[in-house]
Amino acid sequence: MFYHDNKLQYPVRVDTPDPRFARLLQQAIGGVEGEIRVCLQYLFQAFGARGPVKYRDMLMTTGTEEIGHIQMLATAVALNLEGAPADTQEAAAAQNPVVAAVMGGMDPRQYLSAGMAALAADANGVPFCGSHVYASGNLAADMYANVTAEATGRALACRLYELTDDSGMKDMLSFLIARDTMHQQQWLAVIEDLGGHTATLPIPNTFDQRAEHQEFSYNFFLTGVEGTPAPEGRWSTGPSMDGKGEFRMRQAEPMGGEPRLAPPMSGSYAQAQQGVSDRAGPQLD
Amino acid sequence: MFYHDNKLQYPVRVDTPDPRFARLLQQAIGGVEGEIRVCLQYLFQAFGARGPVKYRDMLMTTGTEEIGHIQMLATAVALNLEGAPADTQEAAAAQNPVVAAVMGGMDPRQYLSAGMAALAADANGVPFCGSHVYASGNLAADMYANVTAEATGRALACRLYELTDDSGMKDMLSFLIARDTMHQQQWLAVIEDLGGHTATLPIPNTFDQRAEHQEFSYNFFLTGVEGTPAPEGRWSTGPSMDGKGEFRMRQAEPMGGEPRLAPPMSGSYAQAQQGVSDRAGPQLD
Amino acid sequence: MFYHDNKLQYPVRVDTPDPRFARLLQQAIGGVEGEIRVCLQYLFQAFGARGPVKYRDMLMTTGTEEIGHIQMLATAVALNLEGAPADTQEAAAAQNPVVAAVMGGMDPRQYLSAGMAALAADANGVPFCGSHVYASGNLAADMYANVTAEATGRALACRLYELTDDSGMKDMLSFLIARDTMHQQQWLAVIEDLGGHTATLPIPNTFDQRAEHQEFSYNFFLTGVEGTPAPEGRWSTGPSMDGKGEFRMRQAEPMGGEPRLAPPMSGSYAQAQQGVSDRAGPQLD
Amino acid sequence: MFYHDNKLQYPVRVDTPDPRFARLLQQAIGGVEGEIRVCLQYLFQAFGARGPVKYRDMLMTTGTEEIGHIQMLATAVALNLEGAPADTQEAAAAQNPVVAAVMGGMDPRQYLSAGMAALAADANGVPFCGSHVYASGNLAADMYANVTAEATGRALACRLYELTDDSGMKDMLSFLIARDTMHQQQWLAVIEDLGGHTATLPIPNTFDQRAEHQEFSYNFFLTGVEGTPAPEGRWSTGPSMDGKGEFRMRQAEPMGGEPRLAPPMSGSYAQAQQGVSDRAGPQLD
Amino acid sequence: MFYHDNKLQYPVRVDTPDPRFARLLQQAIGGVEGEIRVCLQYLFQAFGARGPVKYRDMLMTTGTEEIGHIQMLATAVALNLEGAPADTQEAAAAQNPVVAAVMGGMDPRQYLSAGMAALAADANGVPFCGSHVYASGNLAADMYANVTAEATGRALACRLYELTDDSGMKDMLSFLIARDTMHQQQWLAVIEDLGGHTATLPIPNTFDQRAEHQEFSYNFFLTGVEGTPAPEGRWSTGPSMDGKGEFRMRQAEPMGGEPRLAPPMSGSYAQAQQGVSDRAGPQLD
Amino acid sequence: MFYHDNKLQYPVRVDTPDPRFARLLQQAIGGVEGEIRVCLQYLFQAFGARGPVKYRDMLMTTGTEEIGHIQMLATAVALNLEGAPADTQEAAAAQNPVVAAVMGGMDPRQYLSAGMAALAADANGVPFCGSHVYASGNLAADMYANVTAEATGRALACRLYELTDDSGMKDMLSFLIARDTMHQQQWLAVIEDLGGHTATLPIPNTFDQRAEHQEFSYNFFLTGVEGTPAPEGRWSTGPSMDGKGEFRMRQAEPMGGEPRLAPPMSGSYAQAQQGVSDRAGPQLD
Repeated sequence: MFYHDNKLQYPVRVDTPDPRFARLLQQAIGGVEGEIRVCLQYLFQAFGARGPVKYRDMLMTTGTEEIGHIQMLATAVALNLEGAPADTQEAAAAQNPVVAAVMGGMDPRQYLSAGMAALAADANGVPFCGSHVYASGNLAADMYANVTAEATGRALACRLYELTDDSGMKDMLSFLIARDTMHQQQWLAVIEDLGGHTATLPIPNTFDQRAEHQEFSYNFFLTGVEGTPAPEGRWSTGPSMDGKGEFRMRQAEPMGGEPRLAPPMSGSYAQAQQGVSDRAGPQLD
Repeated sequence: MFYHDNKLQYPVRVDTPDPRFARLLQQAIGGVEGEIRVCLQYLFQAFGARGPVKYRDMLMTTGTEEIGHIQMLATAVALNLEGAPADTQEAAAAQNPVVAAVMGGMDPRQYLSAGMAALAADANGVPFCGSHVYASGNLAADMYANVTAEATGRALACRLYELTDDSGMKDMLSFLIARDTMHQQQWLAVIEDLGGHTATLPIPNTFDQRAEHQEFSYNFFLTGVEGTPAPEGRWSTGPSMDGKGEFRMRQAEPMGGEPRLAPPMSGSYAQAQQGVSDRAGPQLD
Repeated sequence: MFYHDNKLQYPVRVDTPDPRFARLLQQAIGGVEGEIRVCLQYLFQAFGARGPVKYRDMLMTTGTEEIGHIQMLATAVALNLEGAPADTQEAAAAQNPVVAAVMGGMDPRQYLSAGMAALAADANGVPFCGSHVYASGNLAADMYANVTAEATGRALACRLYELTDDSGMKDMLSFLIARDTMHQQQWLAVIEDLGGHTATLPIPNTFDQRAEHQEFSYNFFLTGVEGTPAPEGRWSTGPSMDGKGEFRMRQAEPMGGEPRLAPPMSGSYAQAQQGVSDRAGPQLD
Repeated sequence: MFYHDNKLQYPVRVDTPDPRFARLLQQAIGGVEGEIRVCLQYLFQAFGARGPVKYRDMLMTTGTEEIGHIQMLATAVALNLEGAPADTQEAAAAQNPVVAAVMGGMDPRQYLSAGMAALAADANGVPFCGSHVYASGNLAADMYANVTAEATGRALACRLYELTDDSGMKDMLSFLIARDTMHQQQWLAVIEDLGGHTATLPIPNTFDQRAEHQEFSYNFFLTGVEGTPAPEGRWSTGPSMDGKGEFRMRQAEPMGGEPRLAPPMSGSYAQAQQGVSDRAGPQLD
Repeated sequence: MFYHDNKLQYPVRVDTPDPRFARLLQQAIGGVEGEIRVCLQYLFQAFGARGPVKYRDMLMTTGTEEIGHIQMLATAVALNLEGAPADTQEAAAAQNPVVAAVMGGMDPRQYLSAGMAALAADANGVPFCGSHVYASGNLAADMYANVTAEATGRALACRLYELTDDSGMKDMLSFLIARDTMHQQQWLAVIEDLGGHTATLPIPNTFDQRAEHQEFSYNFFLTGVEGTPAPEGRWSTGPSMDGKGEFRMRQAEPMGGEPRLAPPMSGSYAQAQQGVSDRAGPQLD
Repeated sequence: MFYHDNKLQYPVRVDTPDPRFARLLQQAIGGVEGEIRVCLQYLFQAFGARGPVKYRDMLMTTGTEEIGHIQMLATAVALNLEGAPADTQEAAAAQNPVVAAVMGGMDPRQYLSAGMAALAADANGVPFCGSHVYASGNLAADMYANVTAEATGRALACRLYELTDDSGMKDMLSFLIARDTMHQQQWLAVIEDLGGHTATLPIPNTFDQRAEHQEFSYNFFLTGVEGTPAPEGRWSTGPSMDGKGEFRMRQAEPMGGEPRLAPPMSGSYAQAQQGVSDRAGPQLD
């Protein structure tokens, strides 16, 4: 279970409130790369963890830290909304700072729906969607999902850092960027903890590879039409990353025939004109 | 631009149609781990690729292959819907195989909305959502997103393999599983091509790390209350994955104070009772 | 900021695992009436709270409790998925409990996407949506949103209680139902704390009512065509709930005229045939 | 403005309640082909109608009829939920008809969330989405959107008719199918009212066609690789539907060059390895 | 069933069209607090109403009024889009008022998708979502959902009132605000009609409270770590709102143990490294 | 299966990059009227096509062309993002073109989430939704869905043409508009190929019309209250479009009675006060 105190993990200070920056911060709260996502992702991975408990406990630990990051960013949004933009360009608007801000690029729903506070949504007002909570039941797959979240999350934080001159906001982002640095390493450390590429690949490593069509397992299929140069790199030649095969390039060609579907069945209410089919016999290839 | 022929990349055969399996296959078409997602993800990464063109061309090549995988799975759905389930349990239903199938676990929308064909949706009928098309503009972040897609995608394909006894379906899945094996390696090969962990971490590697609060960049923060054991592993001690720091465990404590928000401004239409605030002065920490 | 220990707030025990009940429990996790929603709703209300801090601290306190409820329910899902249903009806399926469960009513994505664990989704697999996190910036409005969440949440928990015979699950639900009882009272107690109906209505109570068209503020408009009986009750006569008016029934009639829109402007690419308009002059009523 | 009485447009009778059919009916309420969609679509087209008012008034008239269709279907759902299925297969379940129904294929949310009534969702529980309310501001485009809605809606109603043996439900569906017949004709009649194909095509007909690249306006581009047969039909030869051109088949070939994007700009936080670009000069073709 | 005339319930007049205000009005049409939501919510509650018909008829009556409010707001959007903003700041844009408006803060989809009319979406262009149509089958829960809708809806209308200087728009909003005043009272009047707090709480009042763990039914659980002050108020002491218990504060402590999940089952395709579990025996607490 | 080359179908040139136009172009990529939709729609119709293969092959052919249109538009977005807007109005912003662009109307997620590239989303950042992939299994219904897509798509392209002065962008749009011209004709040509209105209507034409209530099949129901004029046109009199009936106007009146639902069943946890019902006997009409 969970506990709280009333303080922030790291100071959140806004020297010059900027309602437009409040909009941008929403991406770090409710966006695909944001903190609600990583928080729920790590917690759901922990809640469903099967196997050695050290991984579960680690996920729970960092998932709990992330709740506090949502709090920091929501606080930053609220503080940025407290001021009127310094550069209101419209006379009418200038008399009412709220009007100016809403008209000038802030998320109108931070005012209309939240009364000057954060939403569980991204920078375009699209609500957070739980489908981004990746918890596959496979530890290695989940670790790569977590690296992805922290890599895109750190890119987002760096871009937000670029978009503000506020020293308080830069200070907060410098902390969050550092935490993203750590968390990227942490999930990759789990891959190493599990034995690295040769021990973890292919994911899942519990499917008997003799049941997959191994003649295609290490081929880079070229789909370019004639005359299209083959893109070469580490992936096109040499040993595969799992040490179990050799990369090889191969021109893609259809191995199957044309799909042949049965005519519409009577109760499916296709058009009568669809009743005739050119198909002769069942799908065999 | 793109071209097609009228054949399938690999044969799709269904020996015993099973409308319920047609529902499960939807996850591999329109689900988070499915083929529409990887197809659009690789293509959008290619369309927006900046930097060396070999990466763009490789993404385009594999993105194009994935269109054909959507086709294979959609064909598999249509073929599975052609038969009535063998185990209809209801007398009334047995007289109408469509009724039996709809009542017995198939996705009703494959009949109601598609007339016995595939949908751009997952196994629960939730439509494909473009927010899962990750293309961050950062090549390393995108590669991890791609590994995630192929790792969860291969786990999905293995699970589908487990749920069918149809030799045609198993054959098709054996092919798709092999391709997922390759694609996992391929994206990790790009990371190696880029120089591996030390050259790519932290992602993005173009942010000057002196601007992040490096005293927190390699700390594993413990959020457990007193008495909660610390989860130890590769992430809690030793050199960090990027070789630039040392992992260290550290008890999390609030470094910030209590958030202090201004009282509601007059135009925000809070309740009158919220007009009094305990706050004394601006947020300073 | 937030902390955790590794224990559950209340015991979660499953005597007879039932994968179909695991599906139903999803509604209490990721559904509109579920725990992710109340957790984020109370925390976002706290993060954006302006005015007396006692309300913020109370919201934070209960929001933190709710994180533990997500954990309890996710654990209950995972435990219910550990067993095969007792009543597998199909010979083929009986040999593989996973197949039987997936075919027999469980959420296939709990297996396909989560490897036998909970999802951040509802009982139909629809992902949790952040738009249900109500935090309006108006304390009274938010309290009614919270009562709604706990009233529909308790109805949901009672219905789940009805659907299981498992004594462990009934025990867990008896706890959660009791907490919903408390939380309903708690939010209504805030309304009383604020002075009750007369002091809080209409919400927001900071809009000068002289600016609203008060001749319509306490009228129950009848929209039934001639011959439709008027529905009478507390709302149709007597003093209004805020003590500021008298309820009165009144037949609805159009007070405005027909809408008159301008013809399409040239750059809007309507059809040429829309270019003629019957409108004569601007909208005046 | 709008009025109601307390009666149904057409009788809704359920002889043998079937909770599973209640689930299927949801598609006709909240699905893409359903009544909420057509109701809001016609009303929004009316609310935004510019040009001759007869079209607006007609849209308003039929949009109002559709509200009553939502009511009929929601009533049908509620009545179907009143009975237990006749064919409960499980002993435990048989003692509790609700359990049996929820376990046996009904939408669990009709019980869990709605207490045995209809939802604003489709047959898979996916909520109605306002993005399907097509109202483009172009009358001809909207008419085709309406034909689509009524054509897929009638297909849906026919399929539902196939799935029930209940004479009350068949009677209700026979009425709704007839109304869909009318409404298809009605929207096509508007196209004729506007002058038919030659007067309405291409849509919008207010864009000066000299500004489009007319050498491509009536070409059927073949994208098949060498050896792929060209699909011939009314669309490949002869006069075009608008009488303004001749259909012609033409092999698709790239007319543009390779896309050449600039290297990542410094503030976009791509990886350092992306900094080198093979691009020489700006995009010229 | 439903009827209409061609007039508006209340005049809609726009003196100075403002495309940016047209965007903001979208929140009142398709937003969470908007008119599509209340319209469908009251109608679905009516369509599924079980019990005394007076409540159903009242819901139908007001639900029908709300259709006319959608119409008024959609008309207001269309009229606001008819003018160019008075304060175009860009020379290029000034030559084309549509360009200026799209570039200057209006919702581009009101032009791109709707040709200068309203969308079934919110102020950020997020489509209306049917999951907000609360109709729980429990009359008291639904009334609180309705109060919430009208309280957040009135806050929204007041905020919109703040953002416009147009006397026509202010007049229309003064009417809508008055109707929200009435509707708040109306739903609370139903609670009084049902007997008030003591007769309606806890909701649902049909669950035998002896089956809930009543020792927790009136406790305010404190989740703050040591040193965190307890938030006191009406909710922490004194009789509960339903008169059936006494509020009491209590420190939250885990009553359950650590969750112990079984190791991954063989067919779930976890990683091999997850195969070992520290768990000894089934979950007992 | 599918192939590609590395070139564009038609040149994409941007003379003066405009990040705000990059936002607007998103509607043509991921919007309801956009290219992802038509691409997937035609391909899914082809993948599920039953009946004469010429229709399938034609759909596949054009679906493949549309992939290249996504590519063209995504390239156009990337190129538009390469420049700073010429009219930066803010001193602070002027020093950082990215800041200026993000603040000045571009989609912030094109920078924050994509690092200056296209998203699979619309002009408001709402992700593409697979529910718009219409593939009903009925060829005629699908053709009208395709006409709708191309009619709204061409309206969109014309509107985008209106919003740019860039000659490169105008050139690209002139090509896309021409293709939309063709595709509208193409789908209508299929209707003619199938025999036109009399052979295809009503859709589906495989439902025995004797089973529909034909007395309502060609009636235009008037829902206006007394005094509301009837909207007359081609739809109100004369032969129906399918030649099988006569249009006729008819005043709508309720043919059904009041809905009578049973009281709440005991396990549905309605309020006790709902237990009494005024209903006497089952629904009979």
